[in-house]
Amino acid sequence: MQTDETRPKKIILDCDPGHDDAVAILLAHGNPDIELLAVTTVVGNQTLEKVTKNALAVGTIAGITGVPFAAGCGRPLVRTIETAPSIHGETGMDGPAQPESTIELDPRHAVDLIIDTVMAHEPGTVTLVPTGGLTNIALAARKEPRIVERVKEVVLMGGGYHVGNWSAVAEFNIIIDPEAAHIVFNEKWPVVMVGLDLTHQALATPDVVEKIAAVGTGPAKFVMELMEFFTQTYKDAQGFDFPPVHDPCAVAYVIDPSIVTTRKVPVDIELQGTLTLGMTVADFRAPAPDDCTTSVAVDLDHARFWDLVTDALVRIGEPAVLEAAGLAAATGGE
Amino acid sequence: MQTDETRPKKIILDCDPGHDDAVAILLAHGNPDIELLAVTTVVGNQTLEKVTKNALAVGTIAGITGVPFAAGCGRPLVRTIETAPSIHGETGMDGPAQPESTIELDPRHAVDLIIDTVMAHEPGTVTLVPTGGLTNIALAARKEPRIVERVKEVVLMGGGYHVGNWSAVAEFNIIIDPEAAHIVFNEKWPVVMVGLDLTHQALATPDVVEKIAAVGTGPAKFVMELMEFFTQTYKDAQGFDFPPVHDPCAVAYVIDPSIVTTRKVPVDIELQGTLTLGMTVADFRAPAPDDCTTSVAVDLDHARFWDLVTDALVRIGEPAVLEAAGLAAATGGE
Amino acid sequence: MQTDETRPKKIILDCDPGHDDAVAILLAHGNPDIELLAVTTVVGNQTLEKVTKNALAVGTIAGITGVPFAAGCGRPLVRTIETAPSIHGETGMDGPAQPESTIELDPRHAVDLIIDTVMAHEPGTVTLVPTGGLTNIALAARKEPRIVERVKEVVLMGGGYHVGNWSAVAEFNIIIDPEAAHIVFNEKWPVVMVGLDLTHQALATPDVVEKIAAVGTGPAKFVMELMEFFTQTYKDAQGFDFPPVHDPCAVAYVIDPSIVTTRKVPVDIELQGTLTLGMTVADFRAPAPDDCTTSVAVDLDHARFWDLVTDALVRIGEPAVLEAAGLAAATGGE
Amino acid sequence: MQTDETRPKKIILDCDPGHDDAVAILLAHGNPDIELLAVTTVVGNQTLEKVTKNALAVGTIAGITGVPFAAGCGRPLVRTIETAPSIHGETGMDGPAQPESTIELDPRHAVDLIIDTVMAHEPGTVTLVPTGGLTNIALAARKEPRIVERVKEVVLMGGGYHVGNWSAVAEFNIIIDPEAAHIVFNEKWPVVMVGLDLTHQALATPDVVEKIAAVGTGPAKFVMELMEFFTQTYKDAQGFDFPPVHDPCAVAYVIDPSIVTTRKVPVDIELQGTLTLGMTVADFRAPAPDDCTTSVAVDLDHARFWDLVTDALVRIGEPAVLEAAGLAAATGGE
Repeated sequence: MQTDETRPKKIILDCDPGHDDAVAILLAHGNPDIELLAVTTVVGNQTLEKVTKNALAVGTIAGITGVPFAAGCGRPLVRTIETAPSIHGETGMDGPAQPESTIELDPRHAVDLIIDTVMAHEPGTVTLVPTGGLTNIALAARKEPRIVERVKEVVLMGGGYHVGNWSAVAEFNIIIDPEAAHIVFNEKWPVVMVGLDLTHQALATPDVVEKIAAVGTGPAKFVMELMEFFTQTYKDAQGFDFPPVHDPCAVAYVIDPSIVTTRKVPVDIELQGTLTLGMTVADFRAPAPDDCTTSVAVDLDHARFWDLVTDALVRIGEPAVLEAAGLAAATGGE
Repeated sequence: MQTDETRPKKIILDCDPGHDDAVAILLAHGNPDIELLAVTTVVGNQTLEKVTKNALAVGTIAGITGVPFAAGCGRPLVRTIETAPSIHGETGMDGPAQPESTIELDPRHAVDLIIDTVMAHEPGTVTLVPTGGLTNIALAARKEPRIVERVKEVVLMGGGYHVGNWSAVAEFNIIIDPEAAHIVFNEKWPVVMVGLDLTHQALATPDVVEKIAAVGTGPAKFVMELMEFFTQTYKDAQGFDFPPVHDPCAVAYVIDPSIVTTRKVPVDIELQGTLTLGMTVADFRAPAPDDCTTSVAVDLDHARFWDLVTDALVRIGEPAVLEAAGLAAATGGE
Repeated sequence: MQTDETRPKKIILDCDPGHDDAVAILLAHGNPDIELLAVTTVVGNQTLEKVTKNALAVGTIAGITGVPFAAGCGRPLVRTIETAPSIHGETGMDGPAQPESTIELDPRHAVDLIIDTVMAHEPGTVTLVPTGGLTNIALAARKEPRIVERVKEVVLMGGGYHVGNWSAVAEFNIIIDPEAAHIVFNEKWPVVMVGLDLTHQALATPDVVEKIAAVGTGPAKFVMELMEFFTQTYKDAQGFDFPPVHDPCAVAYVIDPSIVTTRKVPVDIELQGTLTLGMTVADFRAPAPDDCTTSVAVDLDHARFWDLVTDALVRIGEPAVLEAAGLAAATGGE
Repeated sequence: MQTDETRPKKIILDCDPGHDDAVAILLAHGNPDIELLAVTTVVGNQTLEKVTKNALAVGTIAGITGVPFAAGCGRPLVRTIETAPSIHGETGMDGPAQPESTIELDPRHAVDLIIDTVMAHEPGTVTLVPTGGLTNIALAARKEPRIVERVKEVVLMGGGYHVGNWSAVAEFNIIIDPEAAHIVFNEKWPVVMVGLDLTHQALATPDVVEKIAAVGTGPAKFVMELMEFFTQTYKDAQGFDFPPVHDPCAVAYVIDPSIVTTRKVPVDIELQGTLTLGMTVADFRAPAPDDCTTSVAVDLDHARFWDLVTDALVRIGEPAVLEAAGLAAATGGE
């Protein structure tokens, strides 16, 4: 046990819900070691409008209060918009019914909310957890460069060494805004890349789904229905038997780094390749130099990871708002 | 005469002074057809810190009051910082003595000042006049996409078809942040590219310098000393007999488009070339399509252009602050 | 007059007929200052099979005997095949009727014929005149590097500073095999680029066509019918009033360099650009360095150029083979 | 056992000796299931002159007679020459003493020897085994396209999925001439890529070296001294405990494909990347399509591989020429 490690750990979750983003929000909210400072949204799995609506819905389902939610960038820096309806459906979070949100959107731009939040806290205390494209984070770093040394670390879901899902060697979150990723990976803050190498170990296997079902609450039912849809699209689009639930892996690493083995290695983003655009190029040829700020997630403790998720759902319980909306487990069935 | 053309024309000058940026500021302030809404700065000819200091100094020399000055981005979006000391010296505005600035920097980021200003005015009334790299303008368009249709037009100094000064075919303002240029040229606002084709016609020939000298004020003396330094560096670095005074050409076009012939032609920015990175690629092969939003400046009326500059200096006269600083013409000489 | 200039000038014509290639062959054959050592063909305006057939047909029409004709590369080095039916029609030389060829194809590969021919002559005596893509020339230089210092110069039709016809800034002969062009422009032999800047001055205006018509022979009639077709496709595809007859300009430069003004300037080929692939990037920013091996054609003496062409047709007269084929002027009419 | 498989298998070995190339030559010559049709050389580990000299020396040491050796390309297609003295020393085969060669170089260019040899044999009977850069093979395919469907397969040492040794993700043989590799991988012949994934399993461990020593002949002694040098440079340059002996793996696959597990997967070459130039991009996301012509070597049977090498050395025995040169094991000591 590290005594110098302040708990709970403060994070800003920058996401594009997204089925697995939804689980990441629930895990962040339900875990006692995380203090969720803000939730910000960015175009990615679907348009900004849709993922923002989804984020508010998940926040409502989770019973989150007192946490600012803000919308950010509606398109990548340089490239044109690319979304992932083949995986996440037309709404970006197809499957379960969504409640009317009870959360009001913060009027600030996500970039400003990120900057304000980081600057308002002690240096070295705020971790950024991006689980979508890196447009917001890149813009924040460019608009207020002082956040770079003030942020504790950036723990992002994205990339892979050297495997891809949106091209032969590039992952969706990176390839949709490679210039933003280049900015984030080349800044001097510590970056932990939780990529496909790791998240393809985070499969929602039947035993996992069963444990979640056993929680028996509205939010658990919501997760199960998400997984149901996700299982089908991942089977159809990418041939998976069970869907990889990417985004909560980044949150899990923040909660307990011992669940995720990492390796320090220089990583940079390919911006010019015809076949390799958006690849997270890791150089494993020699031990990482001392000033290397990037590391990659290698191995996941599958059981402990899913225990964290289940445990968070148990703690969340049955939020009052869900009952009011008729979406609690007891009332939402057929 | 166009009766539907509101005067004075409102502009935001986004610059990196810079010798010719200084002349642009003086022209914008001294010309009665321009309403200068804001001056913003961006890394370019020198570091952000230096060009911001220079902008405030020029504002002071010009006797500008009531106009917000704000600092913007200190580095390009993706590339590393490249400045131009071979042309503009170590301060970015080497040559004349600079007064202590009497202008207070606006606390806002340039990007926010640009957004606030555009959104606070009627649609179609504000022209952006960037005379440095396009980092601030690009970030403003990404952070608040609504400014794109609200801005009247973007009249920028940069690029060339197909001539370069920082590589065989790329111009400094574009190549230092080609991704930002790509963003600006690909948005749907009208872009008038006042490039090297035009500005290499705006030479500060001896007769021009003589006329400026004849104005006999502190600001005119300041311009003369800028030109003296500029003449030398352009001779040494690029083999020019007389220096091209780029940036005020963009302001002159806003004041009176009849001084600058333009041609409608699709222009895009090369982001991948080994030899052509940052080139403003214009396609002259066929008449521009109806939805073409870009045009390029072709021919300059040299006499009328410099008359505008001289006239602005006459109107500016001898600002009280310059006399106080001992930099008025009568007091500043040997 | 230069006394050290050996005449006639020995050339190898590497071509892809092609309407203007045909005129180049006729000019090379009919001009007394040219000794045509070989004609080689390369994929370009049409497939290798078609342009080879056309080359043999033109050789037959011209009454060429004793000159080897050989077929070369059927595809570019790296890129996929791109031909120009919109300009040259389905046969690559649409318009006039073609005689059965009386010329037997040399069994050697064009690359070997080029190498053998260059190595068989005194160093500094053979000029390569490529008027198509540069695949054959590049392969010859790679297979037998000694030809590079042995060739007198390479006078090629291709490129442009900085204008294009197959993209905004790239010309057909270069963009169809940019890697080959890169090889040719980067070898240490002298390269004279006769590009669009020059050849767009070589228009087949009505007075020119009239003079050719006045020659009154079968080959002249053949050229007129080529020009008729070429006029139409250049009007339709690129909006020209009169077609630019590119390829004979390179031959004309070899015959009499005073007809074509040139300028020494470093030229390199862009291999990576998204918008600029295959651009011949010329750097005009400073005087060319002493070891610069490239120059570009700038100005054409239109009258003298076309006089050369007409004169060549007069000298060619009415080849016996054409009469036999019923394609002589007197017999070929309706 | 496949009855339709003709033995011995005819191969052309295109190489750049090179320590491991030397072992490949010895294996090819000493194994009874291989008929070595020709040995061709190409710039790579060292200059063409040096690797050609080395190839002849190895041929002499192996006692090869009646097999044509020819020199090929002295530089890559487009890029500048890059050699590997850090691995192979100044001669390209540093370490053991070399005999005077008793083999006369074939006067043909390697490209022509490859073409002639393939065209002279029955279709589907000749395997190309390139163990250096792919310049010769690419040029042969471009000069005589008919070899593509006539060659049985191309079994090459090069590349890696997705690991590199000359950059983070590119291997030496590919990155020194990526355009040539692009040509070879994109032709329609079957390509088996024996890359770093495989060859990093082919370590010359102490037990291996001991077995080779036990052969007790001049050629075995020569291999041991090669391994001694190779061990040191691989330790110094790339941190290996034991050196990977790349090139004979390709020959071993031809001898007995069961020693090397392969997987069918589309592979293409990155020509544009800043970080990924020359990467062999394999797309493992879905089962390879039916018309996929590329496969990659995955697993090596280490013991059987080295048994093949040792066995070949035993069969080679003590060539008479080595005794004459004083390089036989018994006579070559200190």
